[in-house]
Order: sequence, then structure tokens, then C-alpha cells
Amino acid sequence: MNITNDITRLFTITYPVMQAGMVWAAGWRLASAVANCGGLGLIGSGSMKPELLREHIRKCRAATDKSFGVNIPLLREDAQDLVRVTMEEQVKIVFSSAGSPEKFIDTLKKHGCTAVHVVSSVRQAEKAERAGCDALVGEGVEAGGHNGSDEITTLCLIPQLADAVRIPVIAAGGIADGRQIAAALCLGARGVQIGTRFAATVESSAHECYKQMVVSAQDRGTILAFRKIGLVRMMKNDFAGRALKAEAEGWDEDRLQELLGRKRERAGIFEGDETEGEMEAGQSSGLVREILTVEDVFKKLIAEYNASISFMTGDG
Amino acid sequence: MNITNDITRLFTITYPVMQAGMVWAAGWRLASAVANCGGLGLIGSGSMKPELLREHIRKCRAATDKSFGVNIPLLREDAQDLVRVTMEEQVKIVFSSAGSPEKFIDTLKKHGCTAVHVVSSVRQAEKAERAGCDALVGEGVEAGGHNGSDEITTLCLIPQLADAVRIPVIAAGGIADGRQIAAALCLGARGVQIGTRFAATVESSAHECYKQMVVSAQDRGTILAFRKIGLVRMMKNDFAGRALKAEAEGWDEDRLQELLGRKRERAGIFEGDETEGEMEAGQSSGLVREILTVEDVFKKLIAEYNASISFMTGDG
Repeated sequence: MNITNDITRLFTITYPVMQAGMVWAAGWRLASAVANCGGLGLIGSGSMKPELLREHIRKCRAATDKSFGVNIPLLREDAQDLVRVTMEEQVKIVFSSAGSPEKFIDTLKKHGCTAVHVVSSVRQAEKAERAGCDALVGEGVEAGGHNGSDEITTLCLIPQLADAVRIPVIAAGGIADGRQIAAALCLGARGVQIGTRFAATVESSAHECYKQMVVSAQDRGTILAFRKIGLVRMMKNDFAGRALKAEAEGWDEDRLQELLGRKRERAGIFEGDETEGEMEAGQSSGLVREILTVEDVFKKLIAEYNASISFMTGDG
Repeated sequence: MNITNDITRLFTITYPVMQAGMVWAAGWRLASAVANCGGLGLIGSGSMKPELLREHIRKCRAATDKSFGVNIPLLREDAQDLVRVTMEEQVKIVFSSAGSPEKFIDTLKKHGCTAVHVVSSVRQAEKAERAGCDALVGEGVEAGGHNGSDEITTLCLIPQLADAVRIPVIAAGGIADGRQIAAALCLGARGVQIGTRFAATVESSAHECYKQMVVSAQDRGTILAFRKIGLVRMMKNDFAGRALKAEAEGWDEDRLQELLGRKRERAGIFEGDETEGEMEAGQSSGLVREILTVEDVFKKLIAEYNASISFMTGDG
């Protein structure tokens, strides 16, 4: 995986592999481990209060001298405080998601930040490019957690984004192995963002039960639910089954919101509640078969990528 | 696209590109045009009575001396008659879908047929391999028309199939351009099956209105509906909107069946009823921007594939 392109240069990284800034899984340990392996580590601020984010940024900086960034969900009420702390701590790479990048782009640019926004359709991509983003993450519906309502898959989304915008595109959603990195680059992406594979590493702050569930999950292991109140992909468990049943029965927004309740992501991913927790994970879980260190994941990704390139054009 | 592998040898074709045997779109004109361009043409028997299939096979043979085959939906009541006609007419390549391949595999093998089955999960793939199939089509949920209930995407399905079976895998679902062919080969497929892109060619027997709708469709142009009675992907129109609304309201199987009615595929694809027809098409429609001849589609696929390979490893 000897690649130099717009994305490796933009972030000063060795491999065009970003680690998704996932809630409850992506703290300083994971982000710094990824950075030290030559990828881009991201601290997931979505599950942190502003001052906890500050602590993670400081610890991450102490643990690596390589590039890392922060993921900020812009729809959060206190998104402004997360941005402020990130700027105060001189982080120069911000990935934003769930909301409009226009609101914060001037602040980010004033601080010399590289701004990347996560999109799930061509329309959103064009909007983010116009707003002044430096790159995009195109996230297909394979992704774990919250998803775009249009349910466009990575295979269909990435070539259309590559045709629609001039800024570089990072492919996300469903990517857990090196074959898929090669595929994403063929589709027109300049890099990939990987979530679930890193959520199930030793350095992830997700609960051991969550990691084991990812490892046990097979191809049919995840579902999409809550279309009416915000589409989410999660692993099958008791709660997921009840969510599907409620949807099939046509429950309205209020009843679904009540069923979902609060803090289920935390209960699932961080506390390891296997039956009642919302176990957010991507459809790529079927490809994750063991809990590895970040270093071993990188070795595996690189070996798989190299094998994929020779397979593609090989006789067999 | 200079590729020789298990799939090009199995079917004696120049390019590892199969044309899907789609209902109402894939008659002898389309299948023979694809065969003459070096791909594998397939007659879609799903919308034909047995004697009409015989006519299409004879016309296809008169129009090409290259490889072609027949797609047979095994769940059809008269599937046995479709198989019989196909064998009587000495067709040596059969793609089966929607049903269990076990029932017909002995007949196919006795007649020296190459048997390929369409699957949408690892479990189905293992079953088809055990039954004695020579190859598999792994079809992701991006595909137009009927889909596997597990909603596994092509990006996630293909690497898992490649790991699970020894027979060669053909990737289908969402593929309309050459970048995606390169991507599919990276994922471990030995070829691709393309539907919607060919349904919108000059030689397709689909109605002009259908073809124009595919060309107009963008990334968000298709929906999945009828989960309770058989998942289908189709383009957005009045009927599709009513189907989504009915599902959101929790309609039961009987009411959904009544809403669906009969012959909506024919009304949509063949008769061009833009509002009431079921306009089956893949999520790849966003990538189809003009109605071309099959020959021009092949030129485009090859150019895009070659550009993709150099882009992937290129500096940019």
C-alpha cells in the first residue's frame, strides 16, 4: 500500500486510512494508536462533554507526534463548545458530521484547520464543497450508527461523488478489510474511513461484550431501524428485534422515540448491555473475525490490499 | 480490460461482464448484442411463457455465434417448462434465481449445462456450492427488482462470499460503470453482472419511458419497498410513494399484496406506465446518464475500467 495522493498529503499520513471518530469507542488511545501506525486517528467527541474532549486531545498529543483530528457532530446542542475546545487545543483537523458545515467553517478556517464533512448524497456533497470544505467523507448506508435517509450504498455513492465534486473524497461505510480499500480507490475515492474494524480493536474504548458481538456477527448481523426518527444501523439483539417489530406495526414517531429512550448507545457500546443496548456497528462486522491491536489491523489491511491488487488483474 | 480468469474461461467470453436476464428488458436483441460485444448475454425468461422463450433462444442463436444463456426464476410455477425448453434448445448456460438450485441441478448437469445461481447471503452461497453450481452471482441490495431480505450490500457481500466458497463469484447489484467493475474484482469477484445499465440501452426491450426514467434518476432515485411480501427496489414514482406510505403505516401482508396487485412490472418496464407501473431499477441508475447502444456501453465500461486502474494507484 504505497500510496501518495491528495489525502495522504492533506493530513501528512503514510496510508490513506482514516479511523472514524465513533461515539464511545474512539478516545485518545485508539486515535493515537492509529496515528502512530501511519493512518489518521480521530477522537470521537460525540460521546464527550467539552472538558472531557480537552483531556482526550491532550492525552492523544502526549501519545503521538503524528496527525490526529477530532470528529464533531454539528447537530449537538453544545457543538459550539466542542469546536471551541478543539480550536483552543490547536487541533488542525476537524471532521464534522450530522449537520451543516456552513455554520462553523469560518471559525475552523480562521484557526488554520483542515475541514472535512461527512455526506451521504450528491446534494450534501455539493453543499459541503460550496461551503469551503477541504475534503469529504462519502458514507454509504453500510455504516454503523446514524445514516443518511436516502440509504445510498458506498458502491453507488462514491463514483457519483467523485464525478460531482473537485475536492477529494474519502469512502466510508462497510469497509473493514484491505480488499475494500483497493475497491474504494477504484471507485474514485482517495482514501477510506474505517469504523467498526477499529471499534473492535484492543485500543478501542468500547466494552468487551460489544467487541465480541462484532466478532461474532456474520453477514446478516446488522439491521437498519428507526427510519421515522433517524435511521440507525445496529447489530441484532433483543432491542433491535423490538425496534423492527415496532416499525413493521407502523408505530408513529412519538412511540418510536419512547421505545428508543435515552443513552442506549452508551448502554450498548460502552457498558456492554447485550440485550437492551443499541449496539451500533457497520455491515462490515461480518468481515471482522477477531479482536486485534491497531498495529495488527494495519498489517492485515496492507497485506489484504496488496493481495487484492494482484488478484484483480491475475489469472485464476 | 485485458482479463483472463475462471469466469471468462467458463463462458468463453472476452470480458468478465454478464448482462442480467431482466424481466421485460432482456430479450434476444439485448442478449445477442452483449454476446457480440464479448460479454455474456442472458435471455430473461422471467417475463416469458415457455414457447416465447424458445423463440427468443432461436432468434438469439441466429443473431450471434458467441456465448449466451438463459436466466430462469426457479420459484415460478412453470419453472420446469422453462428448464425443459432451455434444454431442448441446447442452451449450455443457465443462471437461476429466486428459489433453490437443488431441484434442477441434475437436469442441467445431465445436459452438460454450466449452472450459476444468484445468491444474496453467505448461507445461500454455501448451499448453492454444495448443490453443485459452477459459479455464483452474489447480488447486493443495490440491485433493481427483487432482493434478498437481509439487505446486504455488494461491497460487504462479495468479500465474504469469496472467503466462503471455492467456486468463482460474479458481483451484481449497483454496478453500472467501469470503476465499479475494477472495484468488484478487487473485492474478490471474477466478473460482474450488470442489469440497469443494459436495461437502458437501445437494444433493451424495456419501454422508452422506462429508459428515460433511468437516465433521469439520480443518486436518490430508487427505493426499497414491500419488505413484508418480497423486497423490491424500484424507481420513485406515484406508485412507489404509495408503497412507502403503506409500509410506514404498518399495513399487513394482505393489504400490501392488494396494493401491489398484478402485472405492475409489465406496466412499468414494458408498457412505460410512469405513474402506476413498478419501475424496477438498481441504485446504479444515478450513474446511467444516457441511452446508448450495447456496443457503446462496452466501449465506455472498458475505458472507465482502464482509467480506474491507473487512478487507483496514481498520484492525484
